[in-house]
Amino acid sequence: EQMARERDQQKLRGETTFFRVVLEASETPLAIVEPQKGRIRDLNSAAASLLGSKVETLSGNAFAQAFEGRRPTEFMETLQAAASAEELRGVEAIARRNGHVIMVYPELFRAAGDLYMLCRLNEVDEEGATGPEAA
Amino acid sequence: EQMARERDQQKLRGETTFFRVVLEASETPLAIVEPQKGRIRDLNSAAASLLGSKVETLSGNAFAQAFEGRRPTEFMETLQAAASAEELRGVEAIARRNGHVIMVYPELFRAAGDLYMLCRLNEVDEEGATGPEAA
Repeated sequence: EQMARERDQQKLRGETTFFRVVLEASETPLAIVEPQKGRIRDLNSAAASLLGSKVETLSGNAFAQAFEGRRPTEFMETLQAAASAEELRGVEAIARRNGHVIMVYPELFRAAGDLYMLCRLNEVDEEGATGPEAA
Repeated sequence: EQMARERDQQKLRGETTFFRVVLEASETPLAIVEPQKGRIRDLNSAAASLLGSKVETLSGNAFAQAFEGRRPTEFMETLQAAASAEELRGVEAIARRNGHVIMVYPELFRAAGDLYMLCRLNEVDEEGATGPEAA
């Protein structure tokens, strides 16, 4: 029984490693947000750098705080509405640290019974907004 | 004790979900290969589509089989050598199904005590080979 638990624990650490390795390998800027608390659970370097900061600095922070003039509750409601839309819908926001215009594409998913929001970030260039597919 | 195990199991499923969600959200074509067996443990749609196939078809297959004229043992040795190089080094290979020229950038990591190889795939365009950073 004790050994079975240790095996489970090792498997758990293994899956966490897979998650972290793949998150960081993704050149697509990604953030996983806890929708209730509005906090950033995880993000990769590509996302942190787009927001003008670092992974260690942004992890655990309110997602809204990374953007200009966004209030946590209102911002999460806007993202939830976009995530629930039938078509792919982005939310435009301005990165507080560097003024970059960013489209946030949110998507809800469930893990271990809890709801999470996966956000793909995409910088809006002069040509106008482009979806993540077009990047 | 039984409840503790159930909690562990649920956490484990949760981490697996995070891994799968992020792997698929990555626009960077990624494959995780078991270096001993040379088999594809996981890959995302971006990688499968670059190789001219589907995730379900390629998962569990020998990685070498996705490329033209590559023998499993020799191919894995070449990838391991590239992964162990100090600078970022890619291995060029031709996708068997569509003839695309692909650079494979391998990287070794350990998860739950076992060794795995993360491979980023990158199509070589007419301009010549470009690293994953330049994509």
